[in-house]
Amino acid sequence: MTAFAITERTCLHRVPERGNYDKPTIHAILDAGFVCHLGFEVDGQPYVIPTTYGRADDILYVHGSVASRMLRNVSKGVPVCVTVTHLDGLVLARSMFHHSMNYRSVVVLGTATQVQGATAKLEALKALSEHIVAGRWQEVRPPSARELRATSVLSIPLVEVSAKTRTGPPVDDDEDYSRSVWAGVIPLDLRAQEPVPDNRMPGEISLPGCIETLLKRMSAVP
Amino acid sequence: MTAFAITERTCLHRVPERGNYDKPTIHAILDAGFVCHLGFEVDGQPYVIPTTYGRADDILYVHGSVASRMLRNVSKGVPVCVTVTHLDGLVLARSMFHHSMNYRSVVVLGTATQVQGATAKLEALKALSEHIVAGRWQEVRPPSARELRATSVLSIPLVEVSAKTRTGPPVDDDEDYSRSVWAGVIPLDLRAQEPVPDNRMPGEISLPGCIETLLKRMSAVP
Repeated sequence: MTAFAITERTCLHRVPERGNYDKPTIHAILDAGFVCHLGFEVDGQPYVIPTTYGRADDILYVHGSVASRMLRNVSKGVPVCVTVTHLDGLVLARSMFHHSMNYRSVVVLGTATQVQGATAKLEALKALSEHIVAGRWQEVRPPSARELRATSVLSIPLVEVSAKTRTGPPVDDDEDYSRSVWAGVIPLDLRAQEPVPDNRMPGEISLPGCIETLLKRMSAVP
Repeated sequence: MTAFAITERTCLHRVPERGNYDKPTIHAILDAGFVCHLGFEVDGQPYVIPTTYGRADDILYVHGSVASRMLRNVSKGVPVCVTVTHLDGLVLARSMFHHSMNYRSVVVLGTATQVQGATAKLEALKALSEHIVAGRWQEVRPPSARELRATSVLSIPLVEVSAKTRTGPPVDDDEDYSRSVWAGVIPLDLRAQEPVPDNRMPGEISLPGCIETLLKRMSAVP
């Protein structure tokens, strides 16, 4: 399967040409992000919490302290929505109405369940870590048994998923193109800045290769 | 009132020192964002949708086509959660467990209601526009009566609100500081890149002052 099945809940009715159910597209959008917004409901009130995540094949993982409200409420297998958004630009049109944003987003509808057992948890945490900085996992002290017990991990299978993207210039009404107003796109990009070494390192330690790779991918110098 | 009242639903139980209910702090986090994540529920399924927003005093506005699913469902005055997140850095510790993110986020719990009447709608859309690019509103063609009818605007009062922030270096366990592994922060920043002028402008039109100001604020050159 190279695409996710469209369901009534993921079918885009508004500007449907912006919708996408293609697996490689959806995986790429998910893989490019560090933070998702996890939505769930408690006593009739929706909550949307930013949190880190990782993807391994068609499973998303999120984690946190066992004490956190989010995991306390969604660990029993309750409906969640996970949304990942990249803002790529401000789209400035000639009319207020046609101002827009360029973006790539993925919305995952599903059920979160708690990952059980130390081995499965460790695998999930590794996927999460590799998602954020590939290669970091093997450089640092791994989770102890106590830390592992204090960490909840949720898995959310990618089943009901859609992507939405907008790219390109503003699209104005025909009669507005003659207006003498600047129109175009201001590209936006999440860029890494100069690393700030912790001043408690025992002597000179050079930047590891995994961070060099990350910096190359997200550097401010094009 | 310079702070929002803490409620049972906004009280941070986990790492409470990261919580903040101070109005200027919360306003500043909201004002620095372009996109929020709006959470609502339909038939037991939570949805989290990225959308632009604006703030005027203690009211948030979001908008969209009257046809969009989001507004169709939340316009009757239903519970929503609006979350704005700025990712400020990756925090790389000596142990996997203490890896973290630097961020500023605001979570708004509330009820969204539809803004009624052309005048109030226009005021809300102006607030939304000024929030994103201050000064742009007066440069472009304002919404027509037809466009205004086709646009729904929701208002969400800021009443039950909390901010959460993390800054600074990794915090490791004492016994890990002697490890010979690079630790520190990779700062991340949403930066504006070179504007892309629309190729359908009627001749040479220079970049307006409002965009120059935005570029100065978000420029890639420190």
